[in-house]
Amino acid sequence: MHFDLLHTDTVTKARAGVLHTDHGDIETPIFMPVGTVATVKAVHQHELKDDVQAQIILGNTYHLYLRPGTDILQKAGGLHRFNGWDRPILTDSGGYQVFSLAHRRKITEEGATFASHIDGSKHLFTPEGVMDIERKIGADIIMAFDECTPYPCEYKYAKNSMQMTHRWLKRCWDRFNSTEPLYGYQQALFPIVQGSTYKDLRIESAETIAKYDSVGNAIGGLSVGEPDEEMYAMTDLVCSILPSDKPRYLMGVGTPINILENIALGVDMFDCVMPTRNARHGLLFTRYGAMNIKNAKWKDDFSPIDPDATNPTSRFYTKAYLRHLFSAQEVLGQQIASIHNLSFYLWLVKEARQHILAGDFAEWKTMMVKQMSNRL
Amino acid sequence: MHFDLLHTDTVTKARAGVLHTDHGDIETPIFMPVGTVATVKAVHQHELKDDVQAQIILGNTYHLYLRPGTDILQKAGGLHRFNGWDRPILTDSGGYQVFSLAHRRKITEEGATFASHIDGSKHLFTPEGVMDIERKIGADIIMAFDECTPYPCEYKYAKNSMQMTHRWLKRCWDRFNSTEPLYGYQQALFPIVQGSTYKDLRIESAETIAKYDSVGNAIGGLSVGEPDEEMYAMTDLVCSILPSDKPRYLMGVGTPINILENIALGVDMFDCVMPTRNARHGLLFTRYGAMNIKNAKWKDDFSPIDPDATNPTSRFYTKAYLRHLFSAQEVLGQQIASIHNLSFYLWLVKEARQHILAGDFAEWKTMMVKQMSNRL
Repeated sequence: MHFDLLHTDTVTKARAGVLHTDHGDIETPIFMPVGTVATVKAVHQHELKDDVQAQIILGNTYHLYLRPGTDILQKAGGLHRFNGWDRPILTDSGGYQVFSLAHRRKITEEGATFASHIDGSKHLFTPEGVMDIERKIGADIIMAFDECTPYPCEYKYAKNSMQMTHRWLKRCWDRFNSTEPLYGYQQALFPIVQGSTYKDLRIESAETIAKYDSVGNAIGGLSVGEPDEEMYAMTDLVCSILPSDKPRYLMGVGTPINILENIALGVDMFDCVMPTRNARHGLLFTRYGAMNIKNAKWKDDFSPIDPDATNPTSRFYTKAYLRHLFSAQEVLGQQIASIHNLSFYLWLVKEARQHILAGDFAEWKTMMVKQMSNRL
Repeated sequence: MHFDLLHTDTVTKARAGVLHTDHGDIETPIFMPVGTVATVKAVHQHELKDDVQAQIILGNTYHLYLRPGTDILQKAGGLHRFNGWDRPILTDSGGYQVFSLAHRRKITEEGATFASHIDGSKHLFTPEGVMDIERKIGADIIMAFDECTPYPCEYKYAKNSMQMTHRWLKRCWDRFNSTEPLYGYQQALFPIVQGSTYKDLRIESAETIAKYDSVGNAIGGLSVGEPDEEMYAMTDLVCSILPSDKPRYLMGVGTPINILENIALGVDMFDCVMPTRNARHGLLFTRYGAMNIKNAKWKDDFSPIDPDATNPTSRFYTKAYLRHLFSAQEVLGQQIASIHNLSFYLWLVKEARQHILAGDFAEWKTMMVKQMSNRL
């Protein structure tokens, strides 16, 4: 697996590249739809390919470990074989969910113990154990086991946590490099920069991570409640330290505007539940701004959901029909809205890439940020 | 709109025909997926066409009248335009839902008053009013307003109810024939035979209905809890009276075996929520029997859901993956299972038709009934 940096914008720090994996190429900047428990909620695999044009999807190690479990995934021959998605997959390390979703969690130097949010069963995640689990899941890109600090976070806690994350990274790295992929294709381990919103910690963490000869690097611990300006300041700082010849993945970000702003700071990869979660609540993103399809104003608007959409679904169904589906709490509404929002996110990063390559990314971004701030 | 009877089986009373409508031809025998509130639950319109190969779908007048309402449907230009389904549609009369779903219902000679199950608002359905509503919804085939008696039903109640249904039919017929379609294509009104499980009532009702020069006729008040043998006896009796040159629609039936048995008695059209409702509970129909995909036995069965399925969805995903989606309560499970079951029902009636035309329907039915009785 390797990354080709094709072009860096001269006005902003935006980059266009290609990440080559055994399951195909990923054109960056890219957005990765979140497929928590081996499914991007309410979206068929062929829809992800054909309508959404997703190039890589994400799976959550915490969820997959609990259901269907690593035994089933290993018997299936890995997650790709299990869910039929044959393009690249990235798995997070489960750390974020352990700290946000699991019960009775306790962190020690060894790792994290927790009780399943599903049945209360007790489990232990260690850096070595998580590497083994991610080997069995078999994603192309696997994330190091880290602690994602909340916001706000005391300096002392953030510092200690970051240092532990660095020690855990060393253990992940060693385990990863002393084991082999199980299914005949390459896997890459991405380390994660932490350090909350403290500049000195972020610098220390980015410098530590930069020393690893990883295929790509990630920025964690952002988009956890901090103001956008703090997020951008940290991203900017970290991107200035991380190696430029490797892709940079900003975890869990964000709104369409967040994505464009972070692309401008040098980020190449994104994931977020926002497009799918908001879709399930009837909140749609378009290039002209966001809309709440449940509003009464759409009840007799028989124009397409989004006449400019690249996907046929958003051009086929009308706003009035989609609004009706949400009023009647029909699951088809969630299906349509999920395809719409994901398609929009994928269109947005593809368009960004074209403008980076064409050299007019900055102007386009300024226009888009303004336009997308509207409420339709 | 007219019906061509192509062939009647010589061993059974099964028939193959074509019902021509302004939205296309319907090859009978046919199964009609139920699209209650302008959507077949969890299934995209293009999936109904391409995967399921549905030729006609059903809409529920009661539900559509309450949501989105006839005003919206009329503004849209009818249900076809509203939901984007451009093949034939049939609407029931709302009678069944008023008696099974609505609150504080009261039946008088004038019609039925009821309170909406959604917001408690009060409404009155009369034969004339329902005709006007069904004109506005704009289905190709619209059903007369009737009372569907429960099972068991006292003889006296069944008789009085049937007689009122006949008087209501006259009012429906007159209203229908004194009004025009609103959207430029033909609509046909189907009368409904009632009479509970009483032979003399069924004969009287079938003879009454047979006198109307309708495009097709329906049999109501069955599949409401009576034993299968009683259902078949009534269907057989009624089919012997209804005109043979017109399609016969048995409302709300049924299991795959019910459908084959009733085809053998001369029924041409069916609808039922069973394939979609069972799908949402993980119960799948196949030609080799029914299966509960939630059972633990499927957890590591990585074979396709149904390798013999005509639709690609059932061949693409595995049993283990679908079982996982149900375990994790993921909506994609409902989506896949709904496509599967509907595709199976449409395959079943298409296959029945081919065997009727080929002259070996009886043997094939015997084999299929036995085979489909299995529990996988």
